[in-house]
Amino acid sequence: MKKKGELVSFRPDIKVVDCTLRDGGLVNNFFFTDEFVKDLYKTNIKSGIDYMEFGYKASKEQFDTSKFGKWKFCNDDDIRAIVGDNDTDLKISVMADVGRTDFRNDITDKANSPIDMVRVATYINTIPSALEIVEYCNKKGYETSINIMAVSKSNDMDLDDALNLIGMSCVDEIYIVDSYGSLYPEQLRRLAEKYLDIGEKYNKKIGIHAHNNQQLAFANTIETLTMGVSYLDSTICSLGRGAGNCPTELLLGFLKNPKYHITPLLRFIEEHIVPLKEEGLIWGYDIPYLLTGRLNLHPRDAIQFTHDKRTDYAEFFHFLYDRNI
Amino acid sequence: MKKKGELVSFRPDIKVVDCTLRDGGLVNNFFFTDEFVKDLYKTNIKSGIDYMEFGYKASKEQFDTSKFGKWKFCNDDDIRAIVGDNDTDLKISVMADVGRTDFRNDITDKANSPIDMVRVATYINTIPSALEIVEYCNKKGYETSINIMAVSKSNDMDLDDALNLIGMSCVDEIYIVDSYGSLYPEQLRRLAEKYLDIGEKYNKKIGIHAHNNQQLAFANTIETLTMGVSYLDSTICSLGRGAGNCPTELLLGFLKNPKYHITPLLRFIEEHIVPLKEEGLIWGYDIPYLLTGRLNLHPRDAIQFTHDKRTDYAEFFHFLYDRNI
Repeated sequence: MKKKGELVSFRPDIKVVDCTLRDGGLVNNFFFTDEFVKDLYKTNIKSGIDYMEFGYKASKEQFDTSKFGKWKFCNDDDIRAIVGDNDTDLKISVMADVGRTDFRNDITDKANSPIDMVRVATYINTIPSALEIVEYCNKKGYETSINIMAVSKSNDMDLDDALNLIGMSCVDEIYIVDSYGSLYPEQLRRLAEKYLDIGEKYNKKIGIHAHNNQQLAFANTIETLTMGVSYLDSTICSLGRGAGNCPTELLLGFLKNPKYHITPLLRFIEEHIVPLKEEGLIWGYDIPYLLTGRLNLHPRDAIQFTHDKRTDYAEFFHFLYDRNI
Repeated sequence: MKKKGELVSFRPDIKVVDCTLRDGGLVNNFFFTDEFVKDLYKTNIKSGIDYMEFGYKASKEQFDTSKFGKWKFCNDDDIRAIVGDNDTDLKISVMADVGRTDFRNDITDKANSPIDMVRVATYINTIPSALEIVEYCNKKGYETSINIMAVSKSNDMDLDDALNLIGMSCVDEIYIVDSYGSLYPEQLRRLAEKYLDIGEKYNKKIGIHAHNNQQLAFANTIETLTMGVSYLDSTICSLGRGAGNCPTELLLGFLKNPKYHITPLLRFIEEHIVPLKEEGLIWGYDIPYLLTGRLNLHPRDAIQFTHDKRTDYAEFFHFLYDRNI
């Protein structure tokens, strides 16, 4: 097994990417208050976080802007209203989904934008479309990543081909994405080895985006980072779709770089996350997500089950099981 | 790294030890209804669980029997009222804490008892007392284990000496216990290697008892089992002190032995665990437990903080931090 770094030291190549707004927006349709977003921005700066992802660059043709908060669209002006000129070390990222973005209209020159990085989310069968977006954004001056979703559904041969294709592109980072939270550390270490080999061959950084369906998001993140993965996605208190993500507060507890500070995060949790829970927003590990994760399924049925306040877990498991075969 | 078994196969030497009553009893002072205990017993049988731990053999001199439910004392008759002659494959265990048990009075011949195994919990500085109990119980006919608690506080030299001492005894199993939930998979793999070497040398099985302070109980359990650890402690829905334990429902999802079944567990969760939560019993991963885990501290302050319904996490962190140095 590859190993990079020791438990008592730190690796300066590690970057923590806060996805609280972007993945959390999938829980509340991106309706965050400006105060929440401003305080999150300040918290990330104080905590030493490296990137803050504000949301998606979603197509306004395809999505009704009145039905979503502004962070589904991430207009440059809306970001600027929060960050001004962002004269800080915190970089700003947005995500563009293949097939759901009018990138040629909505992503302008980096020189005129507060955004630093565009991350392109794709399934394995739409890599060429992802590369088109990456090349466009690269020319416009942005750092870029390709995030291959649902890798637990891909076969090895397709994945090898995809990684080589991406390797030859101008993209900066390639992400392992365990969309369904179905992968065990042993499996993710094998995947990380594959991605890191490609990264070494083509000079790309490798990232990890984990989901917490089996309470493994944090474990999978630290296990792959120990091997050399360096871009680490996390969200405060796991806030994110379904079972949520790797919790930033756990991740910063593991990282030894003295630039990371947990106290601002704890204050943000007190002031903003506790109220979100009290208002009734629901996310995070629970039995229904364990079941979709275990069966390597999209969490949508578990989200509906949770929304319906059902607790007939055995019945739900058999429903999923029948659907899976 | 040692590796025993493959992800797609199963190891018949694996034993799952249900600690729901014993570790869960630390949350509600062992006041479980008989219906809960009977249904848990039936659930464990149907799920293929190997051992069910009913509780402690605590001294009635030291503890007021009116202040605790009966599973703190585990009289043979109380167990028999649940299991009859226990004519099943499920074995029954109890725990005896060094210094808190009148084992010579309260543990009789195995021939007259429904109990199969006595597990002895000890800190590293009371190993001789633990061995005294083990030798007594072994002579009485019981399977025995020694569970060295708070191993994250021990130094390597003491631990090596302790393991060799235990190795030379008649004990059957030696447990790695991450009492404070402070250990990362990388650290637990190193510990597992040490324990497994001793196990090989002295012909002992090795077990793991993990806590979920950093959402690592399941990950740490499957990582060490992959190396050869074979006795796996878990509780339904993590029910246990503080952040709780490795959740049985996750563990059975990982194990491939066809004798294990998750559906009975899911039904038990619907019928018994959901009501416990609705009644207000609180356990499981939360920010205060992450903080004690990260600082390698006993969870008692986090339990009090949670009980007091406080959410001033930053303040609490600084309190713990000051106490820790």
